[in-house]
Amino acid sequence: MKLAVIYDSKTGNTKQAAEWIAEGMNLAEGAEARTFAIGEVDENFVAQSQGIVIGSPSYCALMTADMRTWLLTKAGKLGLGGKLGGAFATEQYTHGGAELVIQSILTNELVFGMLCYSGGASQGKPVIHMGPIGVNGNVESHNGMEHYRDYFRVYGERFARKALELFS
Amino acid sequence: MKLAVIYDSKTGNTKQAAEWIAEGMNLAEGAEARTFAIGEVDENFVAQSQGIVIGSPSYCALMTADMRTWLLTKAGKLGLGGKLGGAFATEQYTHGGAELVIQSILTNELVFGMLCYSGGASQGKPVIHMGPIGVNGNVESHNGMEHYRDYFRVYGERFARKALELFS
Amino acid sequence: MKLAVIYDSKTGNTKQAAEWIAEGMNLAEGAEARTFAIGEVDENFVAQSQGIVIGSPSYCALMTADMRTWLLTKAGKLGLGGKLGGAFATEQYTHGGAELVIQSILTNELVFGMLCYSGGASQGKPVIHMGPIGVNGNVESHNGMEHYRDYFRVYGERFARKALELFS
Amino acid sequence: MKLAVIYDSKTGNTKQAAEWIAEGMNLAEGAEARTFAIGEVDENFVAQSQGIVIGSPSYCALMTADMRTWLLTKAGKLGLGGKLGGAFATEQYTHGGAELVIQSILTNELVFGMLCYSGGASQGKPVIHMGPIGVNGNVESHNGMEHYRDYFRVYGERFARKALELFS
Repeated sequence: MKLAVIYDSKTGNTKQAAEWIAEGMNLAEGAEARTFAIGEVDENFVAQSQGIVIGSPSYCALMTADMRTWLLTKAGKLGLGGKLGGAFATEQYTHGGAELVIQSILTNELVFGMLCYSGGASQGKPVIHMGPIGVNGNVESHNGMEHYRDYFRVYGERFARKALELFS
Repeated sequence: MKLAVIYDSKTGNTKQAAEWIAEGMNLAEGAEARTFAIGEVDENFVAQSQGIVIGSPSYCALMTADMRTWLLTKAGKLGLGGKLGGAFATEQYTHGGAELVIQSILTNELVFGMLCYSGGASQGKPVIHMGPIGVNGNVESHNGMEHYRDYFRVYGERFARKALELFS
Repeated sequence: MKLAVIYDSKTGNTKQAAEWIAEGMNLAEGAEARTFAIGEVDENFVAQSQGIVIGSPSYCALMTADMRTWLLTKAGKLGLGGKLGGAFATEQYTHGGAELVIQSILTNELVFGMLCYSGGASQGKPVIHMGPIGVNGNVESHNGMEHYRDYFRVYGERFARKALELFS
Repeated sequence: MKLAVIYDSKTGNTKQAAEWIAEGMNLAEGAEARTFAIGEVDENFVAQSQGIVIGSPSYCALMTADMRTWLLTKAGKLGLGGKLGGAFATEQYTHGGAELVIQSILTNELVFGMLCYSGGASQGKPVIHMGPIGVNGNVESHNGMEHYRDYFRVYGERFARKALELFS
């Protein structure tokens, strides 16, 4: 089953997070996950995918303008209705708006007719509330993307297993 | 297939909306929808339901305190993970916060591990973005719940058809 | 005291709303309010303004991509910190996402260091929760921008009076 | 100038955060800050306060039910309109919903007619987007409230200075 992780990344942190999610997805037998920067999306692959996870860094507590533009001009034409949808984000501060980015991506996915899923508390610990977040180490010395690696991977695996359960 | 619509209602508007949603659900062949006020939830019926839609009036742009309490103390114990989840709301002004109520209910459903679904734009018109909203006629003379009846019904029917498609 | 209403508008509804807000503002003695489309902002006027209200139509329950781009690339350079900030939105359906648009604009304004203000319930009726919303009549036959005219005007007047009270 | 920090706390983390905010406030000359658990609010002190900061832990990505109840039943009667308003939150995971808690508190404050303020990026680094967040060390071993102490203090000081500037 094809699964796509689509992201905007300016410095590499969100790209890294996308790759960890795809790694987690590929742990689920039967999953074939790929990652795409928004400028290089393989639309055939996405059209055939049963699950799509979308991510952006937080810019002033909102998604990037490029991601916003992509969601409106491209994503709406990809026939996402009925697919499983997820979201993730990165930020420079723990209070930097990544949860709001995730919530707005999920809202957009709902408007596309997607089934939004995070696993939440239903899969045991770690609880992943709406989606995984990574705080890079640019500003907060105690932080860094590596702390969040397992969250991205476990989220990817849970997401893939749910897609396989629903659509196989 | 059992489907539950659970609501808090103070003046009857949200109860009315819940009943319209259940009417719409029951138009889908194979659906058995029931409505419950939060104080009178049949927990067996909910446990057997494949889809749950939760609604609240907007109080200061947030769900009621009773609904918040119910979600935390009761809903978390109902094993909602994996079920289809939806949300609706009512308000006294068009700008009165109902969309925020819906968004916060859906966020809570995600944390419970539910699959959130509204149909969005994928089912043609009317587009129902995150969930249906009714503005009662208490304050805005041009408004009234009857204007919103078809939204609640079509939302209920779409939700039920998706649950039947996913889980039958 | 200068006050600016800045908007993105595709069909004229949001422009109309902006003009009603400015009309309301100009009812407050001492206020000099002007409206600007995002492509035609008089940056000197904005820099001298003590209050800024920003509005967008809802596109898939988010602000337009143009407004998102403008907020990130232009607004951040306008030195908005410490100014009074407000927001408004328009939508095609009552459940169409305008409240989410307002909330995300206000969040962005907070990140710019603005003082966000709507008046809320503190000024009597009509209560204007986060900001005024207009539902145009393109889709909902019972709706139309004219229904919302007074909300925009009263919001504008309250906003201007608060700016005058704080900064005169 | 009196300033109040009001919180709900179950395990002590949010209480600790409140105290750090008050410490920061009291660094501003002329400020007299006190903290109150929601069950022990000195309503006279709050009525005389020019700025109020409200905080809650994240429970399933929303404020606690006790805080929700307090906001609706008590805060609305405290005459908060026109006061400076802020918010903060704590959580167990970096993705645990604290930003959503802050956003919903600020929304409620807007509905009360408050002036919401965080300082954002306008005061230099650290940028504090909507309000400070602490991730306790219960689950994430690399985390712990101590990492966030300075954020709470600097936020409190900035908030107090703004209140003094506006209302002295």
